[in-house]
Amino acid sequence: MSALALGHMNPDTDSIVAALAAAELYGKRGFSVTPAAQGPPAPETEFVLKKFGLTAPQVVKDVAGKEIWLVDYSDLQQAPTGMDSATVLGIVDHHKLGDVTTSSPLEAWIWPVGCTNTVLRSMYAFYGVEISKNMAGAMLCAILSDTVIFKSPTCTDVDKKAVESLAKIAGISDVKALGMEMFKVKSAVEGASMHDLVHRDYKDFDMNGKKVGIGQLEVVDLSILAAVKAGLQAEIEKVKSEGRHSVFLLLTDIMKEGSEMLIVSDDPFVVEKAFGVKPAGKTVWLPGIMSRKKQVVPNFEKAFK
Amino acid sequence: MSALALGHMNPDTDSIVAALAAAELYGKRGFSVTPAAQGPPAPETEFVLKKFGLTAPQVVKDVAGKEIWLVDYSDLQQAPTGMDSATVLGIVDHHKLGDVTTSSPLEAWIWPVGCTNTVLRSMYAFYGVEISKNMAGAMLCAILSDTVIFKSPTCTDVDKKAVESLAKIAGISDVKALGMEMFKVKSAVEGASMHDLVHRDYKDFDMNGKKVGIGQLEVVDLSILAAVKAGLQAEIEKVKSEGRHSVFLLLTDIMKEGSEMLIVSDDPFVVEKAFGVKPAGKTVWLPGIMSRKKQVVPNFEKAFK
Repeated sequence: MSALALGHMNPDTDSIVAALAAAELYGKRGFSVTPAAQGPPAPETEFVLKKFGLTAPQVVKDVAGKEIWLVDYSDLQQAPTGMDSATVLGIVDHHKLGDVTTSSPLEAWIWPVGCTNTVLRSMYAFYGVEISKNMAGAMLCAILSDTVIFKSPTCTDVDKKAVESLAKIAGISDVKALGMEMFKVKSAVEGASMHDLVHRDYKDFDMNGKKVGIGQLEVVDLSILAAVKAGLQAEIEKVKSEGRHSVFLLLTDIMKEGSEMLIVSDDPFVVEKAFGVKPAGKTVWLPGIMSRKKQVVPNFEKAFK
Repeated sequence: MSALALGHMNPDTDSIVAALAAAELYGKRGFSVTPAAQGPPAPETEFVLKKFGLTAPQVVKDVAGKEIWLVDYSDLQQAPTGMDSATVLGIVDHHKLGDVTTSSPLEAWIWPVGCTNTVLRSMYAFYGVEISKNMAGAMLCAILSDTVIFKSPTCTDVDKKAVESLAKIAGISDVKALGMEMFKVKSAVEGASMHDLVHRDYKDFDMNGKKVGIGQLEVVDLSILAAVKAGLQAEIEKVKSEGRHSVFLLLTDIMKEGSEMLIVSDDPFVVEKAFGVKPAGKTVWLPGIMSRKKQVVPNFEKAFK
């Protein structure tokens, strides 16, 4: 039986490329690992896959009875159905440790760095396995995506060094230009439904017993989203009505380095409590806030306590 | 604030040496990490520390407000008090993934190998940090202890290679002789109370909502324990009466490569269900069973389902 390397719900570029890279690494080490994703690639990820000639992983939504590697998450809320009877062989991640437990020893590589593909780059080095040229390019893009071209507070020196070494393997001379090209694709909203935009990078969290959804859209200029803001607000109200306490949508301007947050909550004061800034109605500008993981989630977790 | 590297309750040689080794490694990397243990070293560990001129870590039983590295465990049941307000910076372990969660990204190195010190040996190599001669000797002993001188089913090639490289650093020519010397110390029962013997390597588990204690004594010859067996049985009955569903004590004969299990349980049939062998009264011989982690716990977890 081939194990699956499987990223989280609402797959982003990191989780899809990490699945591909983990499968390549473990394949070259003599294990049978198949890349998988819980959904199709978003436009940014499609751009990356196409640019480096890689195929999107198969979509898998049920892992009952399967052996799996979790890439880019370790909490059950972002896992597929069937986890009760799945065997978790390993975890590669860069988030806080979630509530996945196992009944056998596993191989976990979880580091406080900006991107799962940074961890994978070190794993290739540790095991002395060569990274294929195309995979290196895609891994580099995943790191640029997660670290917002090194601007995110989640970005570490390890991430920068990983990009440097991957750029050599992939033969990429201007890393930042590639990053901007990718973020322009990510910024595009034409043709996407409000549902797709809200869920493009969306995660549910359990905050002190309350279900809280946080989505994020990263754009090179916030004006790109002006025309869809009202539609996005209506959409997150719909998502909230499905049994959530709050839904927040971060509209992150990667050039201005800050985020506008759209708010719908049973307790809107929680935003002021979390960030010390009073919202103007259903929206607030949060200067310097770019990372859901390192800034938004920890602040909300404290505010919800 | 110096972070603590802290092993599990009822510290064994692996958890104490891992705390020392993690503190040395992170100290040499420029971080401030202090080794700690949840109790004093057992005789085997004392032998190892004395042999290599190392000092036992300070005893710490409350980690409220502290930054900690967990070594050799990842479940709350084996953690000290104060975990609610502690910050887990990292985990180094070789067990199944427990229920510890974090609110920030962490550094976790968890591998399916025979010993936490095997993982640490690779971490030293990964970070390019030299292992001191004495630490290498102690780490080697921890691996010999956890893998029962390579006889345990938990032992992997990675463990064997780690011992090989550590023996070179420590200047140890006959690894197996050192292992037997250590296991003879471990086998000694004179002067120890029944409580100490049962708790020397004892862990509580949550098995499908039931609290189950499993202790293990490893000896070079089971006859060493003949005189104390009745006392051990009485002691585990006392431990069970403190609110447990079952308490099992493995008396492992490392030369015969099997374990006699002393049993006290609300449902003694669970032993037959787990191992397919019918106990003779309150005891059963389990040929080939040497590892609590890899054999006994998984079998009981299935049987308790």
